[in-house]
Amino acid sequence: MKETILHGNIISADEYGKITIYESGYIVAIDGHITFIGKVLPRECQAVSVDDYGDALIMQSLADMHLHAPQYPMLGMGMDLPLLEWLNTYTFPTESHFKDNDFARKTYHQFAHELVENGTTKVCMFSSLHREATLILMEELEKAGLVGYVGKVNMDRNGSPDLQETTQESITETIKWVKECHFEHIKPIITPRFTPSCTDELMQALGQIAQEYHLPIQSHLSENLSELAWVKALHPDCEQYWQTYQKYGLFNSRTLMAHCVWSDEKERQALKDSGVWVVHCASSNENLISGYAPVHKMREEGLKVVLGSDIAGGDHLSMFDNIAATIRASKARRIIDRWKTDFLTVSEAFYLATSAPNEFFNEKPGFALGNKLHALVIDDSELIAATKMTIEERFERCVYRRQKNAIKAVYSEGNLIFNRK
Amino acid sequence: MKETILHGNIISADEYGKITIYESGYIVAIDGHITFIGKVLPRECQAVSVDDYGDALIMQSLADMHLHAPQYPMLGMGMDLPLLEWLNTYTFPTESHFKDNDFARKTYHQFAHELVENGTTKVCMFSSLHREATLILMEELEKAGLVGYVGKVNMDRNGSPDLQETTQESITETIKWVKECHFEHIKPIITPRFTPSCTDELMQALGQIAQEYHLPIQSHLSENLSELAWVKALHPDCEQYWQTYQKYGLFNSRTLMAHCVWSDEKERQALKDSGVWVVHCASSNENLISGYAPVHKMREEGLKVVLGSDIAGGDHLSMFDNIAATIRASKARRIIDRWKTDFLTVSEAFYLATSAPNEFFNEKPGFALGNKLHALVIDDSELIAATKMTIEERFERCVYRRQKNAIKAVYSEGNLIFNRK
Repeated sequence: MKETILHGNIISADEYGKITIYESGYIVAIDGHITFIGKVLPRECQAVSVDDYGDALIMQSLADMHLHAPQYPMLGMGMDLPLLEWLNTYTFPTESHFKDNDFARKTYHQFAHELVENGTTKVCMFSSLHREATLILMEELEKAGLVGYVGKVNMDRNGSPDLQETTQESITETIKWVKECHFEHIKPIITPRFTPSCTDELMQALGQIAQEYHLPIQSHLSENLSELAWVKALHPDCEQYWQTYQKYGLFNSRTLMAHCVWSDEKERQALKDSGVWVVHCASSNENLISGYAPVHKMREEGLKVVLGSDIAGGDHLSMFDNIAATIRASKARRIIDRWKTDFLTVSEAFYLATSAPNEFFNEKPGFALGNKLHALVIDDSELIAATKMTIEERFERCVYRRQKNAIKAVYSEGNLIFNRK
Repeated sequence: MKETILHGNIISADEYGKITIYESGYIVAIDGHITFIGKVLPRECQAVSVDDYGDALIMQSLADMHLHAPQYPMLGMGMDLPLLEWLNTYTFPTESHFKDNDFARKTYHQFAHELVENGTTKVCMFSSLHREATLILMEELEKAGLVGYVGKVNMDRNGSPDLQETTQESITETIKWVKECHFEHIKPIITPRFTPSCTDELMQALGQIAQEYHLPIQSHLSENLSELAWVKALHPDCEQYWQTYQKYGLFNSRTLMAHCVWSDEKERQALKDSGVWVVHCASSNENLISGYAPVHKMREEGLKVVLGSDIAGGDHLSMFDNIAATIRASKARRIIDRWKTDFLTVSEAFYLATSAPNEFFNEKPGFALGNKLHALVIDDSELIAATKMTIEERFERCVYRRQKNAIKAVYSEGNLIFNRK
C-alpha cells in the first residue's frame, strides 16, 4: 500500500466555473486513489510523511485531449502559411521523419518530458502513420508517467508520396499495432486522420476494428470552411460532415472530435445526441485562422467540451497557455457575436482542461474521492503583490501568467513524476 | 573609446516584412554606436575581444511603447471583470500603493529587471500620479540599463478618492517633476491619463508644459466603444475623440496614442496628418474585449504603428508574447473582415516591436550603421528539429515559442546589461 499526502493551498475545480479552496489543506491518496481532502489530516495518516508545499498552490494537473506528437519538432514554424501549404511544407515532411525509429525515440523522449514539466499528465494524441514509432511514443509517455491514449494515424489518400499507406497496409498495420499495445497507462485509440485522408473502405474497416477491440476514436471535424467544402465534394451522400464518420460507426460517446469550429446547430445536435466529445483547440484555430468555435454556446447546449493544444497548429504545449487562449478565443467570439455571447472565465476554462476530461477517463470532477491523484504544485512566491491576495486571485494570476518555471512538482496517479530542483 | 563586437547569426529587420540575415556575422559598436555589420570582421577590429555567441541568434532587442509600470503587481489579475470594474477593483487601488516610496522602490527594481530579462531595452511608459515614485521608477529603469520615456500620470477627475489630484496639484507636481528629472537615458513625457481623467484646464496646462519643455506626449485614444461615448458626452465641442487632445496641443509627431482600436477613417487620417504614433496593444485589447485594431490597414494607409504590452491590461511583459498576440489579433481581424484584410506575418510584427520604434528614437530601421546597439541573443539549441533549419525558420520559431529562458544576453547602447548564467 502506497500512501501519498500533499499539503498546501488546494484548489479543486469541482463545478464548472467554480473552484473549491482548501487553504493550508491536505490531500491523501492510497495506491494513487484520493481518499481524503480537507483541512485537518485524519488521525490515521499522521504517521505518514507529508510532501509539504507550504504556501504553494496545489491544483489538478492538466489534460491535453488533442495534439499531434510528430509535429513537436515543428512547433512554432510556418505560421504565416495557409493551411494546405503549411501541411505540405512542414507537416507531412516532418511526420514522414518518424519512419526513423532513432529519431522517434529521441524526439518523443524530450516531448514526453516537456509535457510533464508543463503539468500535463493526461493526453489523447495522434502519432504518425508509423506503427513502430507509435509504439515508441507510447512507451516514452508511459515511462514519463503520463496516462491516456495514442493513435496510429490512418491515411490512405490525399497524403504525400512519403506519407501515405495503401488501404490494406493501413488496416493490417492498425490491427498489428493494436495487438502489440501492452502498456499499462497508455492505450490505443482508433485515429482516421480526417475524412479527406481516408477512403470509405478504410473508414469501414476502422469502424469494425474499434468495435471489435472496444477502442475509442479520435479525429477532426469542421475545422475550416474549405475543409467543409472538400468533405462535401468527397461525400455527396452525406448532408453533413459528421455523417461521414457516423455511417462507419466512428461517432459515439467514446469519440473525440477536434475543432468543431463550424459545426452548425444541426451538427452540434448530432454531437450532443451521440455523446461525442468536442476538443476545442483555441490556439490552433487562431494560428491557422480557422475561426472561433462557439464554446460558450456548446456548453449551454449540453455538449461535452474539453481542450487540446493541437500542436503544431497550436504553438505551445503548456495547457495553461491553452487555457488563456481559450479565454481569448471566447472573447473574440463575443466580439464577433456583437457582445451577445458571454466569454469564458478563468475557472470555466480551467475546468475544461481538468475536470471536464475527467469524465472521459471515467472519473468525477475536481479532486473527488476515488479519483486518481493527478496534481501539480505552483510556487508563485516570486511574483510581487500590492496587497495580500486571496487564493482565488493567486490561482487566476498563475493561470494567466502561465510561467513554466513556476511548476514545482507534478503528480500522476499519486506518483511524483516531476520535481523541479 | 569602448568597442563591442558580437558574433553569431545576425538578424536585422531592415524593411517592413523582410529580415536581413548575416549567417555567422559580426556587429561592431564603438561607444554604443554601430559602425559595422557583416560577415568578415574588419582588420582594425581583429585585436579586440569578441563576444562570441557561436550558432546563437542575435537580433534587435525589443521596444515596449505603452505600459503602466504601477500595474506590474496586478499582472494577470481580474481578467474576468469588465473594464470599469477592473479599474476600480484592481487598477486604482494598486496604483494608489505607489504613494509608498519603499514599495515603489522594491516593485520597480524587480520590474526593471524583468523587462531586461525579457529582452526589452526601450520603453515608453506610464507611471502613477505620484511624483516621487515616478522618479524612483526612472532611476530603476536607468540603473537596469533601459532607455526611453516615463510619464508622471495626470488625473484631476473621474479617479478614486485615493487616486486623484486637484488641477493645481497636478500642474505644480508635473512642473516640479520635469525639473527634477536628471537621468541620462530615461526622459520625461507628458501623460494625461486619458480625456475622461483630465479637465480642460489641466489639458491646456499640459499642452503648455509639453511645448515649454519640448516634451513628447502619451495618452490613450479610442480603446473601446463605451469610452468613445463617454468622451463624446464630456466634449460636445469635439466631433471626434482625437480633437480633445489636439485642441490643447497634445496631438503631434511626438505624441504616442495607445490603442486606436475604434479610430475610423477620419480619425486615422488625423493621426496620419499629425504624425501621431499609434501604439497597438493586442494582448490588452484581447483581454479587455476592446476589439481588434485594423493594423494592416493602418500600415497601408501610412500610419506609424508600434507595439505596447499595456500591462496590466496586457498579461505579459515579454514583447515576443506581444508580437505573437499582434499576429493573432491581425488574424482575428481577418476573420472579422471576412478574409478581406491580410494578417501580419512574423517579420512584420517583429518590425513593429523593433525597427518601427527606432524612428521614434531618431534612428533608422534594423541594425543600421549609426544606430545605438540594442540587441538580444537567443540560444535555441535545446529545441529539436526534424531537418536542418534555415536562420529565418529559427527566427520565426523563436518569436513564436517566446521562451524567456532562451534569451541568453541583452545589450543596450552597446553595453551588456543581462547575461544568463
